[in-house]
Amino acid sequence: MPHADIRALAFDIFGTVVDWYGSIAAEVARAGLAADGGRFALDWRAGYQPAMQQVRSGALPWTNIDGLHRRILDDILGARGLALPEADVAALNRVWHRLDPWPDSAAGLARLKQRFVLATLSNGNLSLLVDLARHGGLPFDCVLSAELFNHYKPNPEVYLGAARLLDLAPGQVMMVAAHPSDLRAAARCGLRTAYVRRPLEKGPGGVPEPFTAGEFDITAEDFADLAQQLGCRAGPDNQESPP
Amino acid sequence: MPHADIRALAFDIFGTVVDWYGSIAAEVARAGLAADGGRFALDWRAGYQPAMQQVRSGALPWTNIDGLHRRILDDILGARGLALPEADVAALNRVWHRLDPWPDSAAGLARLKQRFVLATLSNGNLSLLVDLARHGGLPFDCVLSAELFNHYKPNPEVYLGAARLLDLAPGQVMMVAAHPSDLRAAARCGLRTAYVRRPLEKGPGGVPEPFTAGEFDITAEDFADLAQQLGCRAGPDNQESPP
Repeated sequence: MPHADIRALAFDIFGTVVDWYGSIAAEVARAGLAADGGRFALDWRAGYQPAMQQVRSGALPWTNIDGLHRRILDDILGARGLALPEADVAALNRVWHRLDPWPDSAAGLARLKQRFVLATLSNGNLSLLVDLARHGGLPFDCVLSAELFNHYKPNPEVYLGAARLLDLAPGQVMMVAAHPSDLRAAARCGLRTAYVRRPLEKGPGGVPEPFTAGEFDITAEDFADLAQQLGCRAGPDNQESPP
Repeated sequence: MPHADIRALAFDIFGTVVDWYGSIAAEVARAGLAADGGRFALDWRAGYQPAMQQVRSGALPWTNIDGLHRRILDDILGARGLALPEADVAALNRVWHRLDPWPDSAAGLARLKQRFVLATLSNGNLSLLVDLARHGGLPFDCVLSAELFNHYKPNPEVYLGAARLLDLAPGQVMMVAAHPSDLRAAARCGLRTAYVRRPLEKGPGGVPEPFTAGEFDITAEDFADLAQQLGCRAGPDNQESPP
């Protein structure tokens, strides 16, 4: 059996399991905002790394992703001269709690769950991840978040903390992500790595982060391919129904 | 709709969702140990509160439940003059990871999940709770554990920490337990409370902890009754299959 030592899979979420670009673009269009939805999504996401860096550097005290998303959103609305009632801004900020999964995510997770413990391992806060799992019918066994460790990926505390909570050695945990930088940080902590291609993560014109062939333990086209490569048979569809 | 303000249910696990007495008694019998299985289970569980108290008092550094269960098990085996190989003791200690749910647990949770976020809130460590959920096909949305807070129930950090991670006010969370002491501690933190009768928790002759009628927001006969009282319709059976 391939990778027989792996006991748990830890999933990056934004872009790897759910389609933030498409979901946000659609919501901005529905909201009738005078903005290009795709551009709006890209700008929002572009503020994400700098905002987390402010937390890492200590310039900001610990602030969860809901809080960081709101700070970025306020900047974007301000820069575009869009004035919305507070309730509308708060509701828009919650779009990150109802992002749609990629078409293969729920079924692929259900198949992987037959053999592995499935955990989220995201910078998203716990309540956001719970909402995403319920929204998309994603059958995770547990929700692990940077919030539990007061550190954001790619800080090692997050990867090592996940292995500790799962009561596994780092080498028994495989990080699954569409982002080479996330996987490289996981590998430095001793985790195994699976890269999943998500060519549309940043929209039709987006360019994925480059990586070297053979750099990760697995390179997969989607979650069905990942399951195949990990030796999970395509069994009866046991995915949860969305509530 | 009754209790319309409740958004999440937090479940005690040992005795409330799973049957530790019956599961351990059966395992001790299967293992061929020269001991009464039911008595063995009761002795093991009886060591639990004193062991946690040693952590609370600082006499022991933070030790998770797997570690505390093992200390108690070693004492029980020693007191009975039972010498087992280390591998067998380690395997026996893991019985707490494969306790069977009460017959109504999985279906009741599936029904409650249609309306509420479902979290564990147990003194069991996270990996133990993940194993129990997988073993019993228990469709929790997230696994919250005392281990995340480095405090054991009934310390307030656990109840308040759960509400914080769920991004809810304490009054939007209902603690569900078969133990009045757990519910009273939750209520002191502002959580709502549901008592569920588990008359066989301590075996056929066991006496449940007493409480006063009307002391809790809900008193239920089992999870189906709890779902009924919380206004969850008996829908199609959408529980997960055990892996």
